[in-house]
This record gives sequence, C-alpha cells and structure tokens, in this order.
Amino acid sequence: MKNPVGIISMQFIRPFTSESLHFLKKSRALGFDFIELLVPEPEDGLDAAEVRRICEGEGLGLVLAARVNLQRSIASEEAAARAGGRDYLKYCIEAAEALGATIVGGPLYGEPLVFAGRPPFPWTAEQIATRAARTVEGLAEVAPLAASAGKVFGLEPLNRFETDIVNTTAQAIEVVDAVGSPGLGVMLDTFHMNMEERSIPDAIRATGARLVHFQANENHRGFPGTGTMDWTAIARALGQAGYAGPVSLEPFRRDDERVALPIAHWRAPHEDEDEKLRAGLGLIRSAITLAEVTH
Amino acid sequence: MKNPVGIISMQFIRPFTSESLHFLKKSRALGFDFIELLVPEPEDGLDAAEVRRICEGEGLGLVLAARVNLQRSIASEEAAARAGGRDYLKYCIEAAEALGATIVGGPLYGEPLVFAGRPPFPWTAEQIATRAARTVEGLAEVAPLAASAGKVFGLEPLNRFETDIVNTTAQAIEVVDAVGSPGLGVMLDTFHMNMEERSIPDAIRATGARLVHFQANENHRGFPGTGTMDWTAIARALGQAGYAGPVSLEPFRRDDERVALPIAHWRAPHEDEDEKLRAGLGLIRSAITLAEVTH
Repeated sequence: MKNPVGIISMQFIRPFTSESLHFLKKSRALGFDFIELLVPEPEDGLDAAEVRRICEGEGLGLVLAARVNLQRSIASEEAAARAGGRDYLKYCIEAAEALGATIVGGPLYGEPLVFAGRPPFPWTAEQIATRAARTVEGLAEVAPLAASAGKVFGLEPLNRFETDIVNTTAQAIEVVDAVGSPGLGVMLDTFHMNMEERSIPDAIRATGARLVHFQANENHRGFPGTGTMDWTAIARALGQAGYAGPVSLEPFRRDDERVALPIAHWRAPHEDEDEKLRAGLGLIRSAITLAEVTH
Repeated sequence: MKNPVGIISMQFIRPFTSESLHFLKKSRALGFDFIELLVPEPEDGLDAAEVRRICEGEGLGLVLAARVNLQRSIASEEAAARAGGRDYLKYCIEAAEALGATIVGGPLYGEPLVFAGRPPFPWTAEQIATRAARTVEGLAEVAPLAASAGKVFGLEPLNRFETDIVNTTAQAIEVVDAVGSPGLGVMLDTFHMNMEERSIPDAIRATGARLVHFQANENHRGFPGTGTMDWTAIARALGQAGYAGPVSLEPFRRDDERVALPIAHWRAPHEDEDEKLRAGLGLIRSAITLAEVTH
C-alpha cells in the first residue's frame, strides 16, 4: 500500500501561472509522486492542456485544492453566494477534467479566510445549524456530478478559527454520510486534526473507506519532522483504514522565532528548501513503508 | 514542588458577579487550590473585599486573568487605544491589590478576539514589527509598577489565529527579556503551545525561571485527559524548569461531535461537571507529583 506522496504548489509559488510550469518538473525531480495544485483561477491564465501534457510526460500525478470564499460559499446567508459556491464546485469538476486530476480536496463550504463566526460576532447555534444544512444541500447537488465525471470531492474539516461548520472528523463523516454520494469523501489534514481531535489515529481509522485525500502537516505547519506529529502512528492508522490514496505535504515556512514575524501568513520561499523538502518526503514515505512492516 | 492547581472562573459562569460568590466555596470543595478570576469589569459589580474575605476564609488562592481588546491594546495603531491598554494594565494591578492576588496573566497586548491581522487584511511584517515595539514599550511602563506593588504580569503567547505579535514561547521570552523587569514574566498555555511549539517540554525548559503562570489545557481545550497532551512529560518539564507556581485548568466543554455545534465559543455549563473536573484535577495533580519521583 504505497501511498503516492505529493507537494502543494504553494510551496513554490502563488499564484501558479504559465510562468510556473518548471515547478512541475522540479516536483518530480525532488521525488514527489504528485503535485497538489490550487484550482486555477481563470485570471491565472494557466493552460490546462499544457499542464496535463507536462505532468503525463513527467509521470507526475495531480490533485486539486479548492478555494472557497465569501462570494462562493454554499453555506452563505446570501443566495447569490450560495449559487456562486455551487457554480465554483462545478467549475472545479471541469478543471479536474481538463487537468487530468481525479480528486478535488479542501473546505468545500464556508469562508475560511474570514472570521469564522467567532466573537465578537458569533453565530448562534441555530445559524450554524442552518449553515450546516445548506452545506449538505449544496454538496448533495454537486457530488453526483463529480461522480458521473469520474471525479471525487474531499471534504476537509478546518480548525475552530477557520470555520464554524465542520471542525472535526466526526462532523465530516456526518456530512459525507448525509450526502451519500460516491462523488464526496473525506479529506483530512493533520494540522487541523491536531487542534480538534482526541486522537488523530482514531479519527483516521473511524473515517475508513470514506478517506479520499490526506495532508500530512505538522502541528505548527512547519516542515514534517520539525514538530510534534507521531508520523509512525499516523501512517499505521492510514494502513489500518486501508487508505492507498495521496498524501500531500503543505509546509508553511517558519524560519525564525523572532518577534514580529508574520507566522500566520503564507510567505514566499526566500532560500533553497530542497534539502528540507527531500527530508520531509523521506520521513513520510518511510513512515508509510514501515507501517506495513510487521516483523 | 507541589504546584497549586486551580480552575478558571469561566468554568462555572461568565461574568463572575456578586451572585457568583458561591463558586469560590465550590472550587475549594472540588479540591482546587485556587481560582483564576477574569479581572472584574467595573460593571460586574463585584465586591473585591468580599471576594478576598471568602477566599482567605476558604484557603482558596486567587490568580487574575487580564482581558485586552480593541479599545485597550498597547499595540494598537490608535494612540487612544494604546493609552487605554496601559490604563487597563494599571487597573489590573489595583484589582490584584484589592483582591489579594499576586499574578495577572494573559495576552497583555493585541486584540485576541478580533481577526489577528490575517488575510484578507494581513498586516505587513513592518506593521507587525511596530506593534511588537509598542508592546515592549507599553509593558516597560507598567511592569515596574507591578513589581513595586509586589505583583507580576504573565505574558501569554497565543496561537496564530488569535494574535500576530507573540505566538511562540521564544517570542514571549524575547519580549520579557527586552522589558527586563521583575514585574513581567512568561505565562504558558498548552492549548496555544500545541499549535505553535516544536516541543512543549522543550519550550517549558527554555522559559525556566521566567515562568510565572501556567495553564494546562488539552489540544482541543476539552477536559484534561480527553486529548493528546502528554501530561507526564509536561509535568516533568515544569519540574526541570523549577516551576512551583500555579497550574490552572480552563476546559471549554465539547459535549458532542454533531455538526453545527459552535465549538469555537465558550458555552455555559448545562450539566453537572463535578466528576469531570475532579478527574481532570486528579490527573494534573498526579502528573505533577509523579514528575518528582525518581525511583
């Protein structure tokens, strides 16, 4: 059960445009099996056929990461934003078709970058329940479209600071089971799980066959192996869940402990990170391999 | 080195007013050594002398938790809010005097409840550096006042979603050392450390004698013992740091994994939690006791 191990495109550059195509070859050269590409925005001017051609030539797989926001949120109070949310998810299916990807993962609901209904304007339990119902409704519309196109969405829980709707694996399972379509599975990211789960391995095993995408991130989102994650136990749980799907890395850089360093934001690379990337890849790949060793 | 173990007043009620005084006796009855009281707001109408009398009668210690916000932030862009921040910290010293407390802990800077300079309006590195400089400046003014009143502030790092200024223990140490006053030490909370540190025990040891207050919270802020925290290693590190000060619990309740449960917000208790509180207290107290056992 050798899971392909990949790297998110943001590791190199953001946005990923037609000037970024050399990072596809670089990802392969670093030893990654796939690249996780943020679903291109029309204005990025990315030639999908070109990306697909290069990836196929390099033997590099491709997973897509969806980006919802205030204007495209299937859970929104505004009908227009809800429609925008559903249209965006349909657009993601087309993008997967054009790029040759099968999986579109991420928080397919809500408004992650904006304050997630916390104080000083906390939503009431009723408002959040309504947002959850809209989420199920919106996904029930788009998931079958994904399935018929041979694609699958991965619903990602986020921590309490980034969303109010799906924070835990149990909640993601509840939504996926409520939608009940092969076009919608669960995506898990250990950065968020680290804050919201009683046990990461337990949550992985509970997800079981619903798991369609997995991000291996440290508690502080730094390079794998520089934080508190028990990668051996996590890899073992992935094996116990029978998960053979992609495992991608999304390390934000945290170069310095100096005060006034904007830790919260993604920052562009400013040094050669190849060695750290190869070490992180090696660590995760070894943990996956060793999870199968029983003697 | 038996650290006193305490409970935050929010566990029972918020705000804590003159109708809440029976919770002082209850905290003692549950076996807690102290209560951590949010610094009373003038409008709470709390009679400080009465609280002090009851605590002394019950043999219950008292630690204060400061609450800064947009209008009282020593790091603010607005001069009025900076002044408001300094005045508030001076008010906290008076409150400690009146209530018979020595320690005032918490994020003494910034605007925790409001979006902490993250997208879509991220502050630049320069803006954050200025905010950090204002923080040091503000604390350098109030820390000596605390010291001369026999009090001490505990500067608490918060995770990246709740502040942009002090996220890590190393940053808190940098600020405390820059201020260099016996009136300012470091306060650590394992909920935030869980997200931002490479190793919680390492960070505790690095803090050493600067540590003046400690909150033992689970990765998901639930009751101690229901998450991923390694309390044995944490208690051992506290011992190695020579820390004999207060350890307080601040468990937010997370009764249910059902979708649409407002996990992000504090919620009032709706069931008898005595058993869970006693178990959490027992767990932390045992870990502290056993940390000293070497044979």
